[in-house]
Amino acid sequence: MDINLLVIGMDYAKYLAGRANWIKGSALAEVMKKASELQKKGMKLVSLAAGDPDPDLIPRKVLGEIAREVLQNQPKSVMYTPANGIPELREEISVFLKKYDNLEVSPENIVLTIGGTGALDLLGRVLIDPGDVIITENPSYINTLLAFEQLGAKIEGVIVDNEGMRVDLLEEKIKELKAKGQKIKFIYTIPTGQNPMGVTMSMDRRKALLELASKYDLLIIEDTAYNAMRYEGGDIVPLKALDNEGRVIVAGTFSKVLGTGFRVGWIIAEGDILKKVLMQKQPIDFCAPALSQYIALEYLRRGYFEKYHLNSALLGYKEKRDLMLKALEENLPDAKFTKPIAGMFVMLFLPEEADGIAFASELMEKEGVVVVPGKPFYTDESGKNAIRLNFSRPSKEDIPVGIEKLAKLYKEKFGE
Amino acid sequence: MDINLLVIGMDYAKYLAGRANWIKGSALAEVMKKASELQKKGMKLVSLAAGDPDPDLIPRKVLGEIAREVLQNQPKSVMYTPANGIPELREEISVFLKKYDNLEVSPENIVLTIGGTGALDLLGRVLIDPGDVIITENPSYINTLLAFEQLGAKIEGVIVDNEGMRVDLLEEKIKELKAKGQKIKFIYTIPTGQNPMGVTMSMDRRKALLELASKYDLLIIEDTAYNAMRYEGGDIVPLKALDNEGRVIVAGTFSKVLGTGFRVGWIIAEGDILKKVLMQKQPIDFCAPALSQYIALEYLRRGYFEKYHLNSALLGYKEKRDLMLKALEENLPDAKFTKPIAGMFVMLFLPEEADGIAFASELMEKEGVVVVPGKPFYTDESGKNAIRLNFSRPSKEDIPVGIEKLAKLYKEKFGE
Repeated sequence: MDINLLVIGMDYAKYLAGRANWIKGSALAEVMKKASELQKKGMKLVSLAAGDPDPDLIPRKVLGEIAREVLQNQPKSVMYTPANGIPELREEISVFLKKYDNLEVSPENIVLTIGGTGALDLLGRVLIDPGDVIITENPSYINTLLAFEQLGAKIEGVIVDNEGMRVDLLEEKIKELKAKGQKIKFIYTIPTGQNPMGVTMSMDRRKALLELASKYDLLIIEDTAYNAMRYEGGDIVPLKALDNEGRVIVAGTFSKVLGTGFRVGWIIAEGDILKKVLMQKQPIDFCAPALSQYIALEYLRRGYFEKYHLNSALLGYKEKRDLMLKALEENLPDAKFTKPIAGMFVMLFLPEEADGIAFASELMEKEGVVVVPGKPFYTDESGKNAIRLNFSRPSKEDIPVGIEKLAKLYKEKFGE
Repeated sequence: MDINLLVIGMDYAKYLAGRANWIKGSALAEVMKKASELQKKGMKLVSLAAGDPDPDLIPRKVLGEIAREVLQNQPKSVMYTPANGIPELREEISVFLKKYDNLEVSPENIVLTIGGTGALDLLGRVLIDPGDVIITENPSYINTLLAFEQLGAKIEGVIVDNEGMRVDLLEEKIKELKAKGQKIKFIYTIPTGQNPMGVTMSMDRRKALLELASKYDLLIIEDTAYNAMRYEGGDIVPLKALDNEGRVIVAGTFSKVLGTGFRVGWIIAEGDILKKVLMQKQPIDFCAPALSQYIALEYLRRGYFEKYHLNSALLGYKEKRDLMLKALEENLPDAKFTKPIAGMFVMLFLPEEADGIAFASELMEKEGVVVVPGKPFYTDESGKNAIRLNFSRPSKEDIPVGIEKLAKLYKEKFGE
């Protein structure tokens, strides 16, 4: 039976929901597809394109032992957990947030999710009406922008400098949108180690942001994905820790500690928002993976966050960050790039008129170096010349090699 | 700082999306909450309320070894996977479906999801417009009903007998809905080992269902959650295996094989539906857990599905089913209940006018036996007297004890 032939007759498009029009593909998928094709052809690539921590800085041997113990000794590790997650892990996260983020949160206000991505989508589903405006940093994390757009949101960005979102411009933006009669639903921010910029919002800006949210009665969704990847700026605390009014909802994750493959994140929320998140969660994904939850629990209980992350992996990421910044300074002393004190990204700006997408493509084909063009992260027509560089995943050897090759093409195209 | 006091001031309700009104709580949550309270008070409960396989029939020792190996040897097990899942597992699933379900599916048409729950929600998001009608079995799986309702669907049920959905009544239903000008988006069915009824659709009904879908140009979403829990009826194949027109979209899962805690399921789809599912997936949950994907891969590759499931666990579930049916026949010879040839549930019907919710509550308090009232699974006002019984998770010892106690209360209330 020739299934394909018969199937050609089906017009699936007519069954799609109207909301399917809001589903847009990620421009990054193209980059990754091309990279994968070149690799299949046998080309050796240096990738500065990742969005993951380094699997060799993650204590996989130890996690493997924990996984074995958990599966063998804890029957619940193969079963559904409560929709909001196992109570023991929510308690450990409460202790963890107090200790490392200066954040007092009751375990009852924590809902375990499918990573930070799942946390943001769940919040979007509870909060966003089609046509609502979400204010974000410009640029911001592409998957979150796409997730909110899938729900019908309109994204308005506020530009970012070395101290994070230009909160001084935020008030103008709010006034402008209100004048146009638009409904602003919330402000989405990644204040620490922002993706893709790598910048961290200063304490002054954090306070100013909260004041504006209060003045205009807005919610803030704080994405704390990179809070466990802070190299400097020890006095900086999450927005939530400064929030006296309950305006800040948190989307957090263990992805940058245990690895992105475990899919354990969390929401911190209260009142009716918490209630609706809890009600909608089980029919959507039932629960975060039980095995991952029990692994995270043992990791925290045994003090491994300090031992294997703070006192080990984090130093490795810091070293890699230093290597990347050094290579950029040496090879492209006049270029503009961010200098992250947290996270895993550096944003490099090509000369004003340059096309980052074309540059990334040429860099991959000519030099075998994969980078992510910044453009898709921007909420407007800017950012054409931006290139996102990742330093967490490439090896220490690959970082200078990648930057040297990038600099070579940069100089060929734009001069010294 | 008294956070609670301050937070009382926040009116979160005003920020909620309109769609949040469609989010309804599950009536089952109440049962589980009460059970958990009684257990905390030290009451020993016999539970016939689960929706999980038995963690002691799952080869947890072996899975633990696999998890350790995978984490230690496969760096990708801690990283993001492609949004549609690792190619190796999609290939293994393609082979698996051919071998055990007589289903020919290309790995390119398989998208790995957060369990079957995640598969159904993703499909709903691509297909359902607010106001669309979904036809389901009546009763049907409560979480799916809630997931579709969260997206604005209206549910219309078609009653179920021992051979599954009454397809003879389906055509009337379709005509009636069309006459009212309603838009039927798809038919959702769990043809094998239906939850909560435990019944399996006969081959004749399967063929008739496909014919009707073709006649009225409707899609079918086939939930194959219990396909790996078939005790009899070896000639029965999935609807998808009979589908010459590409009308059937599949939501499958490893939850009943590996355990529900791994969160690995799949969608089988084609054309524009597949395309939209793929585009929306990464922003929603990024990917199914990598560790779970690699564990499932090794489990299949090593032939463990046959060794540990077909030739071992499945016999255990069959034995438990027999124990439950025997206990029901002996203790309640005149009561009406389903006789499953697949899945993990028996539906017991109390006398016509009885209130299953009140009975379940009394049974828990008086006899310490937890069961799930059937009513919340029904799409209309029927099913008041239904009680869902699970035989997969309780121990072989608990099954007759639970049924005897249930029968005792039954007789007290309704006579012999």
